[in-house]
Amino acid sequence: MKLREIAGIIGGRILGDPDIEITGVSGIHEAKPGDITFLSGKKKSFDLSVIKASAIIAKEEIKGLALASILLVDNPYLAFAKALELFHKKPYKPSGISNKAIIGNNVSFGNDVSIYPLAYVSDNAQIGSRVSIFPGVYIGEGVIIGDDSVIYPNVSIIEGTRIGSRVTVYSGTVIGSDGFGYVPVNGTYYKMPQVGGVIIEDEVEIGANVTIDRATTADTIIGFGTKIDNSVHIAHNVKIGKHCIIIAQVGISGSVEIGNGVIIGGQAGVIEHIKIGNDAVISAKTGVTEDVPNEQVTSGYPSMPHKTWLRAQSNLRKLPNYIKRIQELERRAGIDSDKK
Amino acid sequence: MKLREIAGIIGGRILGDPDIEITGVSGIHEAKPGDITFLSGKKKSFDLSVIKASAIIAKEEIKGLALASILLVDNPYLAFAKALELFHKKPYKPSGISNKAIIGNNVSFGNDVSIYPLAYVSDNAQIGSRVSIFPGVYIGEGVIIGDDSVIYPNVSIIEGTRIGSRVTVYSGTVIGSDGFGYVPVNGTYYKMPQVGGVIIEDEVEIGANVTIDRATTADTIIGFGTKIDNSVHIAHNVKIGKHCIIIAQVGISGSVEIGNGVIIGGQAGVIEHIKIGNDAVISAKTGVTEDVPNEQVTSGYPSMPHKTWLRAQSNLRKLPNYIKRIQELERRAGIDSDKK
Amino acid sequence: MKLREIAGIIGGRILGDPDIEITGVSGIHEAKPGDITFLSGKKKSFDLSVIKASAIIAKEEIKGLALASILLVDNPYLAFAKALELFHKKPYKPSGISNKAIIGNNVSFGNDVSIYPLAYVSDNAQIGSRVSIFPGVYIGEGVIIGDDSVIYPNVSIIEGTRIGSRVTVYSGTVIGSDGFGYVPVNGTYYKMPQVGGVIIEDEVEIGANVTIDRATTADTIIGFGTKIDNSVHIAHNVKIGKHCIIIAQVGISGSVEIGNGVIIGGQAGVIEHIKIGNDAVISAKTGVTEDVPNEQVTSGYPSMPHKTWLRAQSNLRKLPNYIKRIQELERRAGIDSDKK
Repeated sequence: MKLREIAGIIGGRILGDPDIEITGVSGIHEAKPGDITFLSGKKKSFDLSVIKASAIIAKEEIKGLALASILLVDNPYLAFAKALELFHKKPYKPSGISNKAIIGNNVSFGNDVSIYPLAYVSDNAQIGSRVSIFPGVYIGEGVIIGDDSVIYPNVSIIEGTRIGSRVTVYSGTVIGSDGFGYVPVNGTYYKMPQVGGVIIEDEVEIGANVTIDRATTADTIIGFGTKIDNSVHIAHNVKIGKHCIIIAQVGISGSVEIGNGVIIGGQAGVIEHIKIGNDAVISAKTGVTEDVPNEQVTSGYPSMPHKTWLRAQSNLRKLPNYIKRIQELERRAGIDSDKK
Repeated sequence: MKLREIAGIIGGRILGDPDIEITGVSGIHEAKPGDITFLSGKKKSFDLSVIKASAIIAKEEIKGLALASILLVDNPYLAFAKALELFHKKPYKPSGISNKAIIGNNVSFGNDVSIYPLAYVSDNAQIGSRVSIFPGVYIGEGVIIGDDSVIYPNVSIIEGTRIGSRVTVYSGTVIGSDGFGYVPVNGTYYKMPQVGGVIIEDEVEIGANVTIDRATTADTIIGFGTKIDNSVHIAHNVKIGKHCIIIAQVGISGSVEIGNGVIIGGQAGVIEHIKIGNDAVISAKTGVTEDVPNEQVTSGYPSMPHKTWLRAQSNLRKLPNYIKRIQELERRAGIDSDKK
Repeated sequence: MKLREIAGIIGGRILGDPDIEITGVSGIHEAKPGDITFLSGKKKSFDLSVIKASAIIAKEEIKGLALASILLVDNPYLAFAKALELFHKKPYKPSGISNKAIIGNNVSFGNDVSIYPLAYVSDNAQIGSRVSIFPGVYIGEGVIIGDDSVIYPNVSIIEGTRIGSRVTVYSGTVIGSDGFGYVPVNGTYYKMPQVGGVIIEDEVEIGANVTIDRATTADTIIGFGTKIDNSVHIAHNVKIGKHCIIIAQVGISGSVEIGNGVIIGGQAGVIEHIKIGNDAVISAKTGVTEDVPNEQVTSGYPSMPHKTWLRAQSNLRKLPNYIKRIQELERRAGIDSDKK
């Protein structure tokens, strides 16, 4: 494919040879002749002499770059994504419903589905068009899955779950298991029945080995376009808004409400009944212990505004210095605290 | 069902109309006419005018509540659990042993079991009465499962595991995988064989995607009635007592011993060989680095009594103030520390 | 088996009766007459009178031990591992390729494989000799698995993964799922295609419910002999060196590079693009926010050298004392800060 053709599809202005032949797409470290790659703004200190790619997607002209042609675009990272699609995206090819899958009674299917061997679809499930259900997947009774969704191997989707369209669920994930609710009674625990469900809205992506619990009553909700990384835990009754990013190993406790556009860093946790406002950012490893206003960056445990936390951490490191200064003040004042 | 009939089953005294018809149970926010709901003590500030339920389970009379009847009980949360059961609990209906399940040699089954298609039960397993084994479950050689236990889809229970009665194991959980034990030898690691087992006592509940490792020798033990939330990790040789609560994403290292009635908050970790006493409470995100006495609340990393930790965190936030005060003392003493 | 015979195989010098009959191997607490056990250096305070074993593996003569024979070795822990093997290791017995497994087109198998019922092997996979693939395992298209590797039940290995020889993967683990890469575009997220693969080198062991993501381009790599505990998350493009130890629930973000011989404690996290040098040690719960030099022990969040962190934590606990000293200095200076 000529660079000119690529630019025609993904956009951008060519500096250099538009007729250069492009045969692959790869990262800047691995790119070899024939490849197109990209240079993000962050890599300005990159040693250009090691670049072997034939073309580079970039935001600005790159000084001192002799060999490669440049494709100038506003968003190089986005253009790189589209270039990868161009070379790697396979058209969807339905495999049909395998006779080695187990299909319950009264299951409805849209057009062109792919239900692989060893998948299990329970009674009354509704499976949309062009849905892929891989081997080892369990689909519970009455579960609904919208068009063009993909459920990777060994996912468990329990009764009471409704999944939208263009949703991806990676392997090992469990959606709709019982919430963790018990009533303490004389030193023992009585199980609170968990009779609600889970709603996964359109265009959500859910990583591998995630757990999303059903609500006690009503529904646990993951909003439109939200992306969830691996091994995240989402407890019962949680409501997450649209277009949120939740990084790996985050844990969200019961009845938390999260707005739209929220970003939560890896291994962060949120205690029960917290509200997190729109466009808030929670740093990695934060333990959110109080409500977070819109757009606030929050860190620490107990949680606090990120700047307060940074100052606290900085002061913590400076303590040996301040302790010496207290000792000097005491020495001058004739106090001998450290002797006792 | 009339409110009078519900009270007859779950107990309590009715204020208002005992003949009101109840058609469902739901949370106070979602309740609609016909529903019974509950008001916990914590929600005293709740806006009563938005309640649409026909009846409310509560501990005390609620002033200013015009429409709904009240069911007065000692423990509203427990009564709500029982109301949910009343409306939602389906009687167990055995599905038998599917001819699309794989059953090894010399497997024994109690009465009225449900072994679903695509379940795998290895040789010499002993499956009690009314046990449910869902699709995708793997039961290893000689595994024992007691009466009335439920093993949800895609659980793996490895050889050497003995599970009691009325135990629930949610999807994706792995019980009996090898403990993480290696002997360092000249910069490499020699595997310590893990030849012990796992004992899960009666009435334990284990969430989704939990991992519980087999012991090196002897057994890893989870005590009677203990409840374990999603994505908890329990290493080899751990012994957990009765009626403990272990919240999501907790990690418990090898050979830890935990007493009865212990509560461990989410994302907490416990280092190897620690002992935690009866009725101790470990806060969320704590890293337990020393033994915890009975009934002690422990926080922080390194771990310390909760009150010490609270004071340390509070002081950390006040440091900017104290630093200014040191500077003022230095100014008065004619010291100019910050210049150097 | 006589103690003399055991010593002949695992090495060591016998103190006491070489003809004593040994019938089992167990930990020092559980050992009963007939067992051989071991005493590590750490247990010097152990009450010797409770030992019921017939023989003890130890590094030095044990004073005051009347009954048991001693097997003196340089590395008792290693000798104990070999004793466990001697009594428990079963010879590999191939079960063949079950006709209840699903095998795709053009799959190649080495000699003496064990492909269990309900395993799924996709087209073009290459399975080495003496490989075990347990029920519920999914092997993606073109996946390569080297000789003598064991894939436990319900593992998902996605297309683009190459696994070496003598590798063990425990249940519920997912290898090769898409990396978590999205391009922010006007408040929404555009998926970055993840078209790379995963390379697992020889003699790697991977615990239960681990997730290892495929690279965006090129490969995520786990080096020779590295051992990974349960519920670890390894993001796209990560490169881990040889003979590393990664404890449970660790999270490693995208494009992190880890040297050889690195040890990472439980629940630690590493942010994106970090480099960790050879033989570095990362403490449990650390959040690594800056590169770590060779051999450095690192702790805290933000991360710092372990000694700095220990001092900071110690100072944090001493703050109440220093605050009193500041107040005393103020009192003497006639300042009344706390009144305002």
